[in-house]
Amino acid sequence: MKSGLSFLGILFLAASTSYASDPAYTPEDLATAKQLREQALAGSPAWDIVESLTTEVGPRMAGTAGDAAAVVWAEAKLQELGFDKVWKEPVTFKSWSRGHERAEVVSPYPQPLAITALGLSVGTGGKPLEAEIVAFKSLEDLEAAPAGIARGKIVFISKRMTRHRDGAGYGPVVGARSKGAVEAARKGALGLLIRSVGTDSNRTPHTGMMRYEDGVKRIPAAALSNPDADLLENMLKRQKPVRVRMDLGGREEAEYTSYNVIGEITGAELPDEYVLIGGHLDSWDLGTGAIDDGAGIAITTAAAAMIGQLPERPKRSIRVVMFANEEQGLVGGKAYAEAHKDELDRMHTGAESDFGAGRIWKFSSRVREEALPLVSQMVEVLAPLGIRYGDNKAANGPDLIPVRKLGVSIFALHQDGTDYFDYHHTPNDTLDKIDPEDLNQNVAAYAVFAWLAAQAPIDFGQDLAQEQE
Amino acid sequence: MKSGLSFLGILFLAASTSYASDPAYTPEDLATAKQLREQALAGSPAWDIVESLTTEVGPRMAGTAGDAAAVVWAEAKLQELGFDKVWKEPVTFKSWSRGHERAEVVSPYPQPLAITALGLSVGTGGKPLEAEIVAFKSLEDLEAAPAGIARGKIVFISKRMTRHRDGAGYGPVVGARSKGAVEAARKGALGLLIRSVGTDSNRTPHTGMMRYEDGVKRIPAAALSNPDADLLENMLKRQKPVRVRMDLGGREEAEYTSYNVIGEITGAELPDEYVLIGGHLDSWDLGTGAIDDGAGIAITTAAAAMIGQLPERPKRSIRVVMFANEEQGLVGGKAYAEAHKDELDRMHTGAESDFGAGRIWKFSSRVREEALPLVSQMVEVLAPLGIRYGDNKAANGPDLIPVRKLGVSIFALHQDGTDYFDYHHTPNDTLDKIDPEDLNQNVAAYAVFAWLAAQAPIDFGQDLAQEQE
Repeated sequence: MKSGLSFLGILFLAASTSYASDPAYTPEDLATAKQLREQALAGSPAWDIVESLTTEVGPRMAGTAGDAAAVVWAEAKLQELGFDKVWKEPVTFKSWSRGHERAEVVSPYPQPLAITALGLSVGTGGKPLEAEIVAFKSLEDLEAAPAGIARGKIVFISKRMTRHRDGAGYGPVVGARSKGAVEAARKGALGLLIRSVGTDSNRTPHTGMMRYEDGVKRIPAAALSNPDADLLENMLKRQKPVRVRMDLGGREEAEYTSYNVIGEITGAELPDEYVLIGGHLDSWDLGTGAIDDGAGIAITTAAAAMIGQLPERPKRSIRVVMFANEEQGLVGGKAYAEAHKDELDRMHTGAESDFGAGRIWKFSSRVREEALPLVSQMVEVLAPLGIRYGDNKAANGPDLIPVRKLGVSIFALHQDGTDYFDYHHTPNDTLDKIDPEDLNQNVAAYAVFAWLAAQAPIDFGQDLAQEQE
Repeated sequence: MKSGLSFLGILFLAASTSYASDPAYTPEDLATAKQLREQALAGSPAWDIVESLTTEVGPRMAGTAGDAAAVVWAEAKLQELGFDKVWKEPVTFKSWSRGHERAEVVSPYPQPLAITALGLSVGTGGKPLEAEIVAFKSLEDLEAAPAGIARGKIVFISKRMTRHRDGAGYGPVVGARSKGAVEAARKGALGLLIRSVGTDSNRTPHTGMMRYEDGVKRIPAAALSNPDADLLENMLKRQKPVRVRMDLGGREEAEYTSYNVIGEITGAELPDEYVLIGGHLDSWDLGTGAIDDGAGIAITTAAAAMIGQLPERPKRSIRVVMFANEEQGLVGGKAYAEAHKDELDRMHTGAESDFGAGRIWKFSSRVREEALPLVSQMVEVLAPLGIRYGDNKAANGPDLIPVRKLGVSIFALHQDGTDYFDYHHTPNDTLDKIDPEDLNQNVAAYAVFAWLAAQAPIDFGQDLAQEQE
């Protein structure tokens, strides 16, 4: 199923001319898609799935008891929902524990600060770290600053995230979280504090993964909530040295084996070919992982389960993959690609739900040109859900990056993320942040997508990566 | 200045007929009031005051180092703003410390719970308390339940606060906080958990004062955040025993002397008579006390300071009182009434700002009937601020309850509290929750009120309590 094709300016798919020779869905397949859509809007198992996961398991950071409980929960839930096959595939990684975390301004205005350690950060060595703050407006400002500017100090990066439907505010600030500790250490710093990567104004700082580099000192790194970052900025405006004490207990723990948990609705005609949908089963430890990514698990599991309730099995298989340890480095996604790398031609296409529980408003593809008429037909069925076509450059779904880089076709069902970064990676990631109707709109879209993708009369293409990146 | 009069149905003040014999403000006094209003809207010192208090002092729970720092801050700030006299009056009480606080579900679904101890609660005795949950929909349901129903258990009261502009949702739920531990102990409970008295959905539980009763066992009491209360409810729906472990370190500490800090703009004609405006200087420990009650301190201090900047002193004095320890039992308000009880005829009237920083939308009085034409004139000056008249039964301002009960005239400038209970008594009570323009609208209203009250050609009445309650 190889097809090295070019994608020349196919921007307005809906307007493209159709020809008698174009591939097309049967009226029956389209009717079933519409039926799935309406059925999901009227009610789907998704809410019960995410309620169950957040209530009965809750926080499930990779390598913790919650991770193990989530794997048990996932296998049982997929069985209960009538999947034809349920199995798990090992995913091994070094785990990390958070330990305690505290910070306070020591002088000139003693006050506690609400912080949380960035994921994978080292601790402060069993005792508090106290130092003067040196502030930078952005990671770029820190990078551009003279060598030694932070010697013996704690670097504070204050750049604020902006709110956008598509999460466009994330990119400009997340570097401070992922690379800030390395840059600060290069400038001589003893520790790093960043303004949370988040759009809220709650005292619930946002965690998230950071990285060290070989040869650069590993310094402890934490995020301040937005109000605490404001407070520190207001103190610094007074032009007196501000000293902060931070005490972090984070550390690397032993190697741990978790699992990608997989449920399959087995196809009737081409059972070895499959459409992959899914989300990630792990969460950060601070919340109950409702929007990140209980929602994605629930949406995709519910969509596949509804297809599994149809009188006939789809043409191709539908595989729900609940990826392990996305949060600490796409570990489950990489493990999946590695385990299946010699048979990726069996993966017809895929889509991951990992951007909360907001309504889907845009649909993007990454297929060969010959398949675009099929995408156009999908878009027609999705349109009543308030979804429009984006382009043929779909790149979303973190756990699908590894297979996409190997050339597999993917789709992206873009969710409204306006509020997503209010809660992302905080204690506030809880069930009440999910609107059941929005959740069902997501299920409707995934059911339509997964069903029609499974019924496609031609393949969607492989080796697409080169043209796309 | 005694006047025992009845108040018969004066509901529509603005429509009341005016007579030549009615007391009236001079055109000059009204012009000055309008000038103060416009000046405050254009910019007042209030934002800088609350920014200074929250940044340089921050949390200032009664009896803590923050309390002491706030008293020093307050005296300096009043001096700096040009008040004619600044002094402090002692307020003594037993202080309380929070210590540690943690809770978790032990079984059947182990998860951490976000809790905070209710103010004045005892701890769990140096070790965690673990017991099964017995749930009640409200304090009333607990009261009505059979004796012994909670024996050996932790009572959970799940009633949810509703959102209203005037805070009407507070009354129906705050009893669970203040009296829940006594009622639970009477039914044999070992501890109390309540759903937070709050309208938000953040993992930031709301503290607030609770009470014990002599002869009833003192059991530890804490609030769950709304999402945590939801979680506990969802677990309980599964009809399995839910066991919770809570570990609280709260305890009564030594006697402490704080201060009501007072600043006076001294009147030109009747310097011994005064209009009291103010707020409370203490806060809970969790946030920086921006809306509760840094805003009230800032609004009233700014209003008085602006009057102090006029070319002439007002007729009567204007006294800003920053009350000590409101949160743990109106201690400063009671101390003020006690210290001044033999000279309360000098207190012309008063108003306290203690409901956040939302815009003022209603103005209520508690004056003798003869003074109502003056109130009507005040309302005319306030109307362009979007403020309408309420009634002559003003009762707001917790620290003024003790003087009101002794018959002193008061006013109420009702703020929009729609969002107030999202942040009230939580870590989220921080500066970013205040809108500078709304704050200035408050200053405008307080400046108009304080100025015109000070200029009143007749007294507003005393011994009003009996008729009103």
